[in-house]
Amino acid sequence: MTRVIERKPCEELTATGNSTLNPFTEPVAYVNPGEEIKITTWDAYGGIIGPDRTFQQAIEQGLAGALNPVTGPIYIEGSEPGDTLAVKIIDIDLPAWGGSSIIPGFGALEGWLNQMEPRTKISYIKDGKITYKTDHGKVIEFDADPFIGTIGVSPAYEAIQTLAPGPHGGNMDCPDIRPGNTIYLPVSQKGALFGLGDVHAVQGDGEICGTAVEISAAVTVEFKVINKTIAWPRVESEDMIMTVCSARPLEDAARLAYRELINWMVSDYGWDRDDAYMFLSLAMKSRIAQIVDPLYTVVAKIPKKLL
Amino acid sequence: MTRVIERKPCEELTATGNSTLNPFTEPVAYVNPGEEIKITTWDAYGGIIGPDRTFQQAIEQGLAGALNPVTGPIYIEGSEPGDTLAVKIIDIDLPAWGGSSIIPGFGALEGWLNQMEPRTKISYIKDGKITYKTDHGKVIEFDADPFIGTIGVSPAYEAIQTLAPGPHGGNMDCPDIRPGNTIYLPVSQKGALFGLGDVHAVQGDGEICGTAVEISAAVTVEFKVINKTIAWPRVESEDMIMTVCSARPLEDAARLAYRELINWMVSDYGWDRDDAYMFLSLAMKSRIAQIVDPLYTVVAKIPKKLL
Amino acid sequence: MTRVIERKPCEELTATGNSTLNPFTEPVAYVNPGEEIKITTWDAYGGIIGPDRTFQQAIEQGLAGALNPVTGPIYIEGSEPGDTLAVKIIDIDLPAWGGSSIIPGFGALEGWLNQMEPRTKISYIKDGKITYKTDHGKVIEFDADPFIGTIGVSPAYEAIQTLAPGPHGGNMDCPDIRPGNTIYLPVSQKGALFGLGDVHAVQGDGEICGTAVEISAAVTVEFKVINKTIAWPRVESEDMIMTVCSARPLEDAARLAYRELINWMVSDYGWDRDDAYMFLSLAMKSRIAQIVDPLYTVVAKIPKKLL
Amino acid sequence: MTRVIERKPCEELTATGNSTLNPFTEPVAYVNPGEEIKITTWDAYGGIIGPDRTFQQAIEQGLAGALNPVTGPIYIEGSEPGDTLAVKIIDIDLPAWGGSSIIPGFGALEGWLNQMEPRTKISYIKDGKITYKTDHGKVIEFDADPFIGTIGVSPAYEAIQTLAPGPHGGNMDCPDIRPGNTIYLPVSQKGALFGLGDVHAVQGDGEICGTAVEISAAVTVEFKVINKTIAWPRVESEDMIMTVCSARPLEDAARLAYRELINWMVSDYGWDRDDAYMFLSLAMKSRIAQIVDPLYTVVAKIPKKLL
Repeated sequence: MTRVIERKPCEELTATGNSTLNPFTEPVAYVNPGEEIKITTWDAYGGIIGPDRTFQQAIEQGLAGALNPVTGPIYIEGSEPGDTLAVKIIDIDLPAWGGSSIIPGFGALEGWLNQMEPRTKISYIKDGKITYKTDHGKVIEFDADPFIGTIGVSPAYEAIQTLAPGPHGGNMDCPDIRPGNTIYLPVSQKGALFGLGDVHAVQGDGEICGTAVEISAAVTVEFKVINKTIAWPRVESEDMIMTVCSARPLEDAARLAYRELINWMVSDYGWDRDDAYMFLSLAMKSRIAQIVDPLYTVVAKIPKKLL
Repeated sequence: MTRVIERKPCEELTATGNSTLNPFTEPVAYVNPGEEIKITTWDAYGGIIGPDRTFQQAIEQGLAGALNPVTGPIYIEGSEPGDTLAVKIIDIDLPAWGGSSIIPGFGALEGWLNQMEPRTKISYIKDGKITYKTDHGKVIEFDADPFIGTIGVSPAYEAIQTLAPGPHGGNMDCPDIRPGNTIYLPVSQKGALFGLGDVHAVQGDGEICGTAVEISAAVTVEFKVINKTIAWPRVESEDMIMTVCSARPLEDAARLAYRELINWMVSDYGWDRDDAYMFLSLAMKSRIAQIVDPLYTVVAKIPKKLL
Repeated sequence: MTRVIERKPCEELTATGNSTLNPFTEPVAYVNPGEEIKITTWDAYGGIIGPDRTFQQAIEQGLAGALNPVTGPIYIEGSEPGDTLAVKIIDIDLPAWGGSSIIPGFGALEGWLNQMEPRTKISYIKDGKITYKTDHGKVIEFDADPFIGTIGVSPAYEAIQTLAPGPHGGNMDCPDIRPGNTIYLPVSQKGALFGLGDVHAVQGDGEICGTAVEISAAVTVEFKVINKTIAWPRVESEDMIMTVCSARPLEDAARLAYRELINWMVSDYGWDRDDAYMFLSLAMKSRIAQIVDPLYTVVAKIPKKLL
Repeated sequence: MTRVIERKPCEELTATGNSTLNPFTEPVAYVNPGEEIKITTWDAYGGIIGPDRTFQQAIEQGLAGALNPVTGPIYIEGSEPGDTLAVKIIDIDLPAWGGSSIIPGFGALEGWLNQMEPRTKISYIKDGKITYKTDHGKVIEFDADPFIGTIGVSPAYEAIQTLAPGPHGGNMDCPDIRPGNTIYLPVSQKGALFGLGDVHAVQGDGEICGTAVEISAAVTVEFKVINKTIAWPRVESEDMIMTVCSARPLEDAARLAYRELINWMVSDYGWDRDDAYMFLSLAMKSRIAQIVDPLYTVVAKIPKKLL
């Protein structure tokens, strides 16, 4: 039977405890590698918006508590600094709706589009489909493609806001961190001190307005501890290996992801470095995961069958 | 019958005439909208490498003439500044081989990977398949996916090197500029003064070592002049609309492409600007076309069926 | 009489306690506004190098403890979130030597200059003069110009490494934070939780190799709490007002500093915003403080007599 | 007696001829090294604004001809590709007024300050003093510090707009290119094909609103051809050597300028490369010349007495 780790009530969330990944907060649960765990989460708004309340209204009502909260820290038995934590994403339970917002001062085109007003739009989710209604009467139905927006472990000695991605994971907003795939994270603290939240029902590349269809959800995962050191998060699907790196400017995120992918081909697949570099120039796939957070995130991928 | 515009012999190519898109060079041909035209081109090396000669050797032998040469300028009858030139890409004839190179001082990981030696690798092409051989004995066969690397019109008053992309087109290295698709270019000169070259048999996102499988090829196209003004190149496939913008840093290329895509949704598909912004945050696809040229290129796409 | 707050012995420094500015660590001292305080500090190496030991050797000997440590947190009585903490820098006592290092993987030209070896160079300081000896026999004597490299308060809920600058201050490496000047910092925690360290005997603009003449020193300061909210650190000298902002890419650090300076002219000197913008285009001074840390730092200045 | 090269009447300026530096336009004059030459220039607006006409009004009246025009090309006898052209700036004659403008879509804080209206402000110049009047009644008198904003030679085969800086010089907007100093430019064409214009009576670091006090002026210079190859413009004053490089993002402009300064110390002053790198980290001065043009410009300097 799957053990459940419940999110805290949203009024008990705290900024230091839930809006950072950090080595200071007491674990909320201790988990063994191999256990199947279901983790319930709040949406990136911290559970304060809904069909009857925009993000703007929630802030005006003083409801804003913990932004982009994670459920955690979860202590993974047997993990030590220098290890790699593998997190197999088994399933994501979708709720009935999610919310997208334009938040002035945030978003990839802030300052590039004049005069944007704050707004929150609720999209309904049913049978794996999302229904988006424009303000002018269009109704668009398209497939949900849920994934975990924020997932990571404690940094070595900092407490890093959950809005930021980094070598420790965090707010990568990478659609490849989805059911069926495994994410690998570099462990910096005894017990790893894992957390996740900020699930998205669907997201476009770049997450350009700063939000996706943000949902509260339940995520089923299984952990494994690997005695091996990596520098940045990696993702593996049935067909692909992928690296996920974050930096500013965006080209540095891309360069990091490309270099990490070369490193992976060299260490695990027997490639010569310069051959890997040249071959990726012919066959790599790369997407901009997000271009709105404190660091930007790029994913680099190569099909396993080409390795 | 398809009219053919032949490339010049490679020893007659000139830097001012063939390695820039410019308003100063005499047209090599005059073409009517609606004609089917086949244009032969040199590879990005200007035709000086081959199975028996690396790029390094060609330079040492003094063969380097015009880098990244285009066949052109081609005068398109009836096109005026402020118009849009639509170029339907009908077909690309593939040659038997293409060449990839590591060129020190060039490439996305220059300075990120230590001590790279120059090298040129020939990959053979047959029946739409590319065979890549690593230096250590791996042989990888994968699908060709040919497209035009450099395609554009004359800038308004500059002569811009063909290695650079920009609002006028140029070296966008965008795999979506491929057979079956149409590219739209903003006209700045009477006659448009069109040119193309630098065809790739296949390329990974980012073109990270600075080269793809670079080929000499023959491209069949058909032109149309549209009385409408656009700011940046656009691409249309059967299913998608796409914008292609170039800048540094990379995030500015992305922001331009995203804003152009919003503009297109607003002007041609009846969307409200902020709705388009929010919806693209849920459904846009974006790829890094290249991150090696004087400006970097990003493509933003949305399926037509969602509009 | 000046009260002294002593640095911890260097073997008692911790990464969480001394290499971050944070809201989690117990204050080491409580200070009243108006008191004159002398704070002793370790150099950016955490006190482990010297005339007989390079940074490289110290790391190999396992001495590396807390990088870029601050003395703190110091609790400033009466300061509340939303206040501004003014720190008047009265004096810096110089030691007899300081150390500069080239650290591979760090520095503005990492990847731009090939094959750098790690090295540490000791420069001697006497009567306000620094003596720099090149490896090839040149001896250069020039003026010391000491300032505080790292100075800040606790962030709102993160623990941010002292190697990074930000709105909370931190590792700005700004030569204008020097004796005679006052720095203003935005308070996010009750008591401000102030810390400083990483004093430099002299530094060039950009701090391009990643280190200055790094010294252990004693800094005399006096605090004042102002009931006013600012967004980023500001500095005031007898003649100039200055803003100090940090971001990547470097242009964003510059834009933030310029905007902050306009905001200051508008709020405190009665300027119209657009007039301030246009006038700074004629009269502003701006320097790159550093281009090596996790965020880059730019200073924007205007003489008071022009306001 | 000083020979005078007169600017063309402003209605005869052309975009291809005067708003690019290029190898296509016929020289307007042939000059020998060692001759003292006075060159008259138009302001960056192309001579169309004045005390009675804003830039906005001039555009509406259809007066906009050549933006940022240079007087040239001037053929320098004896200069060949690979040479360095030294231009000693002897004097700048100031006019009675100059104009600053806010031009929406242009400027360092475009998108960072909301809702800017276009405006042009005339400042009067007398006895080396500039009088700036704010819209709200302040009158500020401060020193003129005139310099040449745009100065360069023809690129190798491109025609580059005079609004852009680059290795060939161009719109560097660098206040160190001033009377008393010498600028060195890398020659790419027989005769160098020199041009200058866009003189500024005074400018702040960054030129943040996009314009300085833009003036029509007369510049007295003397040329010298040096048989030596440089990669980027350099400036020499009585006391300092300086490199002037341009790129985006801004950090790349800075890195280029820093590397060029190291190269100069190594080639001409006998420094070891890594020693130069470390010493510049202690003693270099660096300013942001401009952060508004197609590439941004950074200057790096070191006093000669420290070399």
